[in-house]
Amino acid sequence: MTDTQLHVEDLAAPSAHAHGYIDHKDDLLKRLRRAEGQVRGVQRMVEQDEYCIDILTQVSAATKALERVALALLDDHLSHCVAQAARDGGEVAETKLKEASDAIARLVR
Amino acid sequence: MTDTQLHVEDLAAPSAHAHGYIDHKDDLLKRLRRAEGQVRGVQRMVEQDEYCIDILTQVSAATKALERVALALLDDHLSHCVAQAARDGGEVAETKLKEASDAIARLVR
Amino acid sequence: MTDTQLHVEDLAAPSAHAHGYIDHKDDLLKRLRRAEGQVRGVQRMVEQDEYCIDILTQVSAATKALERVALALLDDHLSHCVAQAARDGGEVAETKLKEASDAIARLVR
Amino acid sequence: MTDTQLHVEDLAAPSAHAHGYIDHKDDLLKRLRRAEGQVRGVQRMVEQDEYCIDILTQVSAATKALERVALALLDDHLSHCVAQAARDGGEVAETKLKEASDAIARLVR
Repeated sequence: MTDTQLHVEDLAAPSAHAHGYIDHKDDLLKRLRRAEGQVRGVQRMVEQDEYCIDILTQVSAATKALERVALALLDDHLSHCVAQAARDGGEVAETKLKEASDAIARLVR
Repeated sequence: MTDTQLHVEDLAAPSAHAHGYIDHKDDLLKRLRRAEGQVRGVQRMVEQDEYCIDILTQVSAATKALERVALALLDDHLSHCVAQAARDGGEVAETKLKEASDAIARLVR
Repeated sequence: MTDTQLHVEDLAAPSAHAHGYIDHKDDLLKRLRRAEGQVRGVQRMVEQDEYCIDILTQVSAATKALERVALALLDDHLSHCVAQAARDGGEVAETKLKEASDAIARLVR
Repeated sequence: MTDTQLHVEDLAAPSAHAHGYIDHKDDLLKRLRRAEGQVRGVQRMVEQDEYCIDILTQVSAATKALERVALALLDDHLSHCVAQAARDGGEVAETKLKEASDAIARLVR
């Protein structure tokens, strides 16, 4: 685990180092449950031999929903964890920035 | 030709209706259940306050899994429904091609 | 080259086997020249030390422009080459469909 | 211009606030010139009536090249401008983070 140190710091100042998405947890879970429902809907469509293009439309909708979840998570991560690490400076800051860049690259490709 | 026969069967049993993915239905459903499991896994990670970047990695994996499902569906659709429509010609062919193009554009963006 | 045969046939009946984009050549070239101009614009911005985010906006615009060119090319390809191959049937049809699927997968990822 | 303040500060301490990509300018320009060459290559292929799929492969290569430029720019931007803004804090930090998030969203979609 890369963020053990931050977790230790959390004990002293929980509001400062809690994960970025902590304030949006309910919203994230709601979106994820909706995305799960969309994926299950796609399964039902395949089981019921629905038309390929209609299924594709649903798959695209589920993919876009997950992309929005990813962007929301990344947003929170940048404005909390990464910003905090930048303030702390040093090696942790560099690690966090590298991690964020890699995550962005995975989203783009 | 694999789908001439299916079309003939359609007359007797409309439920068989021979969509392009009919031969890959089990494979598609298996992939979709795995993608559903991944989305549920992401929910669990959010509930347990796991690290943002680890969650993002899982979201990307689920998104990529859905993209592969979409490409597989599109493949089957092109080689069955669209190819058949091209052979039939006329307005149906044009509609099918337009539909496929629109679906591809939705996947790319 | 996979389409040697088609090229040979072109000599006898050019309208039948010309590449799908033949009717949109001017439009494609216009879009490509604009995309080239956008990429050159990005170079100028980097040379003049403009603000990263403004440069990123321009890079995104150029990328989107190229994506639209790709979708237009694919459209023409499906409704001409692939549709023709589907009508001809046989191994050529399968090769063309496989090629188109691979090209779509490259666009999506 | 949103970064007037940073520019003013640049006069005093140029190395601290120069744009993030300043150290990679030559590399960026080299990549951009290569991308420009690729786009020109695509134009030539269209002019010479080359095969659609071969052209599509080239368009995908150019698009991927631009995406890599965008990721490199974003990397530099996060580790310089955004990290600096996070250290400075206040409204500028929020603006920079919002800008970066919007740029990432444009890249993903």
